[in-house]
Amino acid sequence: MNTTTSIFESKKDIVRYFEQLRTQTLNILRPLEPEDYVVQTAFFMSPPRWHMGHVSWFYDQLLRRHDREYRQFSKDFDHYLNYYYYSFGRPFEKGSRGTVSRPTVAETREYFEHINRSVIRFLRQAQEQNKLNDELRRLFFLAFQHEFQHQELLVYDIQHLLQDKYRPPEMKQLPAGKPVGGMVKIPGGIFEMGYNPQLWGNNFCYDVEMPVHKVWLDDFFIDRVPVSNGDYLQFIEDDGYENFRHWLSDGWEWVQNEKIVAPLYWEQDGNGEWYRSDFRGRLAVKDTLNEPVVHVSFYEAWAYARWAGKRLPTEAEWEKAAAWDEDSGKRRLFPWGNDAPDARKTNLLESGYWAVCPIGAFSAGVSYYGCQQMVGDTWEWTSSEFMPYPKFKAGFVEYNEKWFGNQKVLRGGSFGTPMDGTRNTYRNFFRPPERWLLSGFRCAKDA
Amino acid sequence: MNTTTSIFESKKDIVRYFEQLRTQTLNILRPLEPEDYVVQTAFFMSPPRWHMGHVSWFYDQLLRRHDREYRQFSKDFDHYLNYYYYSFGRPFEKGSRGTVSRPTVAETREYFEHINRSVIRFLRQAQEQNKLNDELRRLFFLAFQHEFQHQELLVYDIQHLLQDKYRPPEMKQLPAGKPVGGMVKIPGGIFEMGYNPQLWGNNFCYDVEMPVHKVWLDDFFIDRVPVSNGDYLQFIEDDGYENFRHWLSDGWEWVQNEKIVAPLYWEQDGNGEWYRSDFRGRLAVKDTLNEPVVHVSFYEAWAYARWAGKRLPTEAEWEKAAAWDEDSGKRRLFPWGNDAPDARKTNLLESGYWAVCPIGAFSAGVSYYGCQQMVGDTWEWTSSEFMPYPKFKAGFVEYNEKWFGNQKVLRGGSFGTPMDGTRNTYRNFFRPPERWLLSGFRCAKDA
Amino acid sequence: MNTTTSIFESKKDIVRYFEQLRTQTLNILRPLEPEDYVVQTAFFMSPPRWHMGHVSWFYDQLLRRHDREYRQFSKDFDHYLNYYYYSFGRPFEKGSRGTVSRPTVAETREYFEHINRSVIRFLRQAQEQNKLNDELRRLFFLAFQHEFQHQELLVYDIQHLLQDKYRPPEMKQLPAGKPVGGMVKIPGGIFEMGYNPQLWGNNFCYDVEMPVHKVWLDDFFIDRVPVSNGDYLQFIEDDGYENFRHWLSDGWEWVQNEKIVAPLYWEQDGNGEWYRSDFRGRLAVKDTLNEPVVHVSFYEAWAYARWAGKRLPTEAEWEKAAAWDEDSGKRRLFPWGNDAPDARKTNLLESGYWAVCPIGAFSAGVSYYGCQQMVGDTWEWTSSEFMPYPKFKAGFVEYNEKWFGNQKVLRGGSFGTPMDGTRNTYRNFFRPPERWLLSGFRCAKDA
Amino acid sequence: MNTTTSIFESKKDIVRYFEQLRTQTLNILRPLEPEDYVVQTAFFMSPPRWHMGHVSWFYDQLLRRHDREYRQFSKDFDHYLNYYYYSFGRPFEKGSRGTVSRPTVAETREYFEHINRSVIRFLRQAQEQNKLNDELRRLFFLAFQHEFQHQELLVYDIQHLLQDKYRPPEMKQLPAGKPVGGMVKIPGGIFEMGYNPQLWGNNFCYDVEMPVHKVWLDDFFIDRVPVSNGDYLQFIEDDGYENFRHWLSDGWEWVQNEKIVAPLYWEQDGNGEWYRSDFRGRLAVKDTLNEPVVHVSFYEAWAYARWAGKRLPTEAEWEKAAAWDEDSGKRRLFPWGNDAPDARKTNLLESGYWAVCPIGAFSAGVSYYGCQQMVGDTWEWTSSEFMPYPKFKAGFVEYNEKWFGNQKVLRGGSFGTPMDGTRNTYRNFFRPPERWLLSGFRCAKDA
Repeated sequence: MNTTTSIFESKKDIVRYFEQLRTQTLNILRPLEPEDYVVQTAFFMSPPRWHMGHVSWFYDQLLRRHDREYRQFSKDFDHYLNYYYYSFGRPFEKGSRGTVSRPTVAETREYFEHINRSVIRFLRQAQEQNKLNDELRRLFFLAFQHEFQHQELLVYDIQHLLQDKYRPPEMKQLPAGKPVGGMVKIPGGIFEMGYNPQLWGNNFCYDVEMPVHKVWLDDFFIDRVPVSNGDYLQFIEDDGYENFRHWLSDGWEWVQNEKIVAPLYWEQDGNGEWYRSDFRGRLAVKDTLNEPVVHVSFYEAWAYARWAGKRLPTEAEWEKAAAWDEDSGKRRLFPWGNDAPDARKTNLLESGYWAVCPIGAFSAGVSYYGCQQMVGDTWEWTSSEFMPYPKFKAGFVEYNEKWFGNQKVLRGGSFGTPMDGTRNTYRNFFRPPERWLLSGFRCAKDA
Repeated sequence: MNTTTSIFESKKDIVRYFEQLRTQTLNILRPLEPEDYVVQTAFFMSPPRWHMGHVSWFYDQLLRRHDREYRQFSKDFDHYLNYYYYSFGRPFEKGSRGTVSRPTVAETREYFEHINRSVIRFLRQAQEQNKLNDELRRLFFLAFQHEFQHQELLVYDIQHLLQDKYRPPEMKQLPAGKPVGGMVKIPGGIFEMGYNPQLWGNNFCYDVEMPVHKVWLDDFFIDRVPVSNGDYLQFIEDDGYENFRHWLSDGWEWVQNEKIVAPLYWEQDGNGEWYRSDFRGRLAVKDTLNEPVVHVSFYEAWAYARWAGKRLPTEAEWEKAAAWDEDSGKRRLFPWGNDAPDARKTNLLESGYWAVCPIGAFSAGVSYYGCQQMVGDTWEWTSSEFMPYPKFKAGFVEYNEKWFGNQKVLRGGSFGTPMDGTRNTYRNFFRPPERWLLSGFRCAKDA
Repeated sequence: MNTTTSIFESKKDIVRYFEQLRTQTLNILRPLEPEDYVVQTAFFMSPPRWHMGHVSWFYDQLLRRHDREYRQFSKDFDHYLNYYYYSFGRPFEKGSRGTVSRPTVAETREYFEHINRSVIRFLRQAQEQNKLNDELRRLFFLAFQHEFQHQELLVYDIQHLLQDKYRPPEMKQLPAGKPVGGMVKIPGGIFEMGYNPQLWGNNFCYDVEMPVHKVWLDDFFIDRVPVSNGDYLQFIEDDGYENFRHWLSDGWEWVQNEKIVAPLYWEQDGNGEWYRSDFRGRLAVKDTLNEPVVHVSFYEAWAYARWAGKRLPTEAEWEKAAAWDEDSGKRRLFPWGNDAPDARKTNLLESGYWAVCPIGAFSAGVSYYGCQQMVGDTWEWTSSEFMPYPKFKAGFVEYNEKWFGNQKVLRGGSFGTPMDGTRNTYRNFFRPPERWLLSGFRCAKDA
Repeated sequence: MNTTTSIFESKKDIVRYFEQLRTQTLNILRPLEPEDYVVQTAFFMSPPRWHMGHVSWFYDQLLRRHDREYRQFSKDFDHYLNYYYYSFGRPFEKGSRGTVSRPTVAETREYFEHINRSVIRFLRQAQEQNKLNDELRRLFFLAFQHEFQHQELLVYDIQHLLQDKYRPPEMKQLPAGKPVGGMVKIPGGIFEMGYNPQLWGNNFCYDVEMPVHKVWLDDFFIDRVPVSNGDYLQFIEDDGYENFRHWLSDGWEWVQNEKIVAPLYWEQDGNGEWYRSDFRGRLAVKDTLNEPVVHVSFYEAWAYARWAGKRLPTEAEWEKAAAWDEDSGKRRLFPWGNDAPDARKTNLLESGYWAVCPIGAFSAGVSYYGCQQMVGDTWEWTSSEFMPYPKFKAGFVEYNEKWFGNQKVLRGGSFGTPMDGTRNTYRNFFRPPERWLLSGFRCAKDA
């Protein structure tokens, strides 16, 4: 039995699950120097120490409400660690997180450990006393998923800080696979989308993935694999960034104002050779032509698709291509079925770390329609705005619903996404110009 | 036969149609002093002289391409009057339109008349020589609709400049109607939306209103009438602007940063009494409780709906409530049917001017489901992002498609919308915080 | 007797003096279209209509305090026309003067005439009743000088708005004179500076020109004539704008941020030929090599002087070079003596208009030490900060003293300076990067 | 013989002098955590690690030019550590120093030690080989003074970062002295100012302190002691911050925009009680009434002086009050004479650390005219702009001269000023609104 499966299974052992994810948070941070923990490189980025504290602060809030024995670590942490929850007091101004050096990393680590001990004690006790009811379980799983989200943000933020100097200790790269391409045709009709507890049990999902609801889709085509660096390079070389006709008006303004000429972390040397920085160092683009393009904004994805004579899929189209199984007449939780990701079907390694995954690197994880690498390689921009599903009911106070509007849905999950942090119904969302995340895309086309 | 109908009919006489709309543009401008023409009050607003020139410039572009005899008025106008069409050279920076005083109003008026003469000569000649083919007709009708859009923007911009000092000469106010309220239930199912030339002929519509396509809708409720000033005042008095729980995160930030406490053009005197400015002057809100609230942003509409335990409709829901006729199994171009707006069914006056229209002011224009005042009172925010319909094909170069994304669809048309400038399928779009337009809303609810 | 002298003399006839200066204000405005009156091109510039109103508003304040019979024109004007006098209520935000179109030009002109009638009536009555005491006289002369200042600002602001399209009706250009150059040596020692009523009578001067006080000066050299366009072109061609070594740190930052490559209103065509815009139109720089360079900032003047191996003079040095007469052991009010400027000694024309004055265009107005064109050609930057003289006593409430600090003194007066608006002791002041004024300089050097 | 004297003497032993000052830099940093080293709290502040590297980088530049054997530590440091010296390549953008976490503190410390070893080796060798000529000595002393300046900036910047959490290990507070007050009268006449090598030897001074030159001064009064917290509190309580009449126009704008209501690091609790933070912690203002007010801007000093019916002294007035000895007819390098500061005459402690020094805390250091605490308590704002003295010759490339203009001179030295880092002729300079430095003032008055 491999690790990732066991972690998926471990939801039955909530304490072990918690321990594993907390260890994973520390693993991500392990290569950092104390100085790295406090620096904020841009307004959208948070210092790693802030993430470390903030994920702990979330449990802190739970314990304060549900654990009579809970002893608060220090009131000093509260203001700095509250990001955007007005319900819990005035949040600390996001753009100024890099202007304070205290609490120190060591103190924040102490706080982290204090939370570990307190949560474990509380969960054990609740289990023993049969008090770990559904509502409590749901709240703790929300906290776990919240930490997954911040694990991924940590990966983005550390890369933004250290660029090619960050070396996660156990990172790997999958061997190149058989190159594939082309589009598959998906038949239209009524499609039901959203997370379905009847099918997949009460494993945690976010409220915004529900309820299951009908959508009408016309026939359409969708790319078998994500757009690669090689594909994208052609767009650049065809002056894609200089021709306003490919771009949305807001995108064109962004390109002009920010002087955008390539994906983030790409740069051209004096001879016109392109390079990219990632966790493996500084690489020639020509040596990674066969990897999915990442660090592109929605605007760039849109412009590429127009240039290619295609378009971006809606999130419903993406979900159908990933989840629908015509034979069974049922939907799958993952492209390959309902089993948790494992090393045979995706690029999640047994260590729980991610792998960089060239196009076609494994074909065991294809969807019913033959789409590859839909989960775990790169988040894929869709054309859909992040808005509530019909008959949406908020499941948590002030968690997701306040972020509706002005953001685009991404689907799939990247090689920075933690184990158990994604599925076919997962809705990620970012603003159209954002691209410090691991964001790529695949195209669709009217049939 | 009343005027508005005849204008609708006048599409058959393209020259007369053109003359009428040009006269209407001048009518809107008539009360202005020369000084009013050149001032820019905010980056989103344009000086009236710019509008006057820009609508003419649009015909100028057509004539240069299609009329060999056309004599250009002056090259000086080109740069200043080009707003955002990169195809026609570098556009003049939008925020700086109020920093130039030349060409003067008189020179711009001369240009306006030059265009009038040139267009009329060209159209007459084309008709006589049987050269006014469908494509040419379509391009000129685009220019007419373009001018309609700017007529409405003129109304907004002049109000922003002169506030309660602008008095359109023929403006009227309809007498109060029978107050109505409540919601109507609309049954779900597959609904076809979009402009249908088979049903409604080749009258002009924008490319973004097409093609007809299917959407699935669940059963839902929708308000019979728009939210009124009286309704909205309750939201204000219940501290709606002080409670973050009603607001989207971006909306809350906007409210905080801009210190928003009420709709635009509302102000409170020392005794707490609310006043609003409009074309009738400065009015006590308590004297207009029964009129649709206008000058609210999408964020305010969203917050109100949440506060009221409701939500905003999607544009598909809005269109079904306005257009579907269960009895005939067909859609209507206007809520009341396929006839053009006239004074018996809407607030468009015979003069071609608009009327302020209290809730329930006329009931002849109700939709099949009983919704009132869906067209011609106030634009109504929907929850839908402005994005292309499935299988959308751009009908014009660089006209609408570059504006997809980051904007919300409004439906219906306001009392500032020109005759023939709206219909059930018309998709208007603005950014979520904008509110210098005549924007209101009605709420929906899950069934 | 020529006009300018008579105007100088006319101070004895205060009503005639007032009438003449008001006519001059209207003369400056005469070529404008109504649209030109309301536009604000930059935050430092004011719409001409604002100037027209504001100079009138100043008399309005005087009359309200001193004339019981005064009938106020309209309260609406107050807020818009108050620039920076906190004593008189909250001033209108400077950067927003171009966002209002009312009161109209015609209304403002009515206000202007109302003030004319009121001031004349008041002054005549006060004279007849022997109530025009020294204090009242001083206040009205402050208002006159205030209007002189705004006449000059009007010239700057209209040029900024209309550039080479502004044609003052009576403007002339003096014929070229004998080219002169080189530096003169001024001996050091104790020098008394400042306006001296004992010497020059109780003619108006600003409080900041007083009191007379001693300064120690070492021997120094000063340029015989201002730096010319030809001189300055050499600096440009020697890459003066690209070499940080010539520049103050703040100046270098300004050059970089604003992308400054030449004086304001200079531009280079595709062939590298330089052009300048002024009231005569667009001129080749090579055709005006022999005119004083204008529209340079303090930073540019400093950089040029360093590049030339020289430095800027202090204001004491400038004043000594202009005013000291070794033979009489007395100071002169003007370089040529104590007589008012006239057409034989300076470029003020009989019409009261200015003339552009090439280097050496007339030599009748030289100072004792042989310096030419010190008054009336171009304001000359000095290295001195605008600060109070020792033992300064504020003569007016909130007039000059609040502007001490952060500004540099300019001396001399430009061809935009009104008759009677300058003298050897006059201290003009602007911020180091400002250059929409008629600002040039001459250099000094240690002996 | 006490330490401070010996350090003054130690200039004869340049290696020992260097070692002492480098130790002092480390002493200031000793209480910091690694996290504190990298944070930038405001654009004007630099992360402590940057200071540590930058002072070393300065020696690095010297060694590269003068030491053939010098082995550069790492090229990576160059860009980040270059602040504003264009001569040495493109400087790192000042406002972004807090966005990089590498090089780490440990690496920077290694660099610091590498420079220590290299400088000592070089200086020893140069001495042995008799190659330590005057020019080399002068350059190294410039580097030493440069490090003194950054030692003081470190004190300011660490306080801005940690506020009342920074506890320098050996800081002390002098016991309260006999309260003194009032003004002394200084007779006018020609006064010679500036550093005089004939009088004081070739000890290092900055080029901007020279040359000696004459100034004329009228008789004037100057405060015997600096303005105290108690004095300043009266200004606050008399609504000094709410009354525009006391303020320069730019100062008033600053007060309004920044919402300034008291000196930096002062805050008022709910009961209206004022508190201040400094290196001793958070103190009630009422317990420090008898200490000099610090952390006020030039604007505040000016406003206070006006409120008090006084004015700020010019730097010439300040220097005369501090340096002139009527009996000897000579000037003193320090108020008390030409001996280096020691613990009997000033608040510099034997440890080389500073002491907070209440008004009148020691009277041994008074100037000839009886002024107390002119050196070593607080920098004192003067009204003079930082500009070159007559006949100034730049002694160093791109060091001080580029900062002329737009800054005000402060005199005296604060309790953050390092030993040997000030004297009567020392000219410090900051921008008018800056106040994170230890800046206070004393007033003057016309006689």
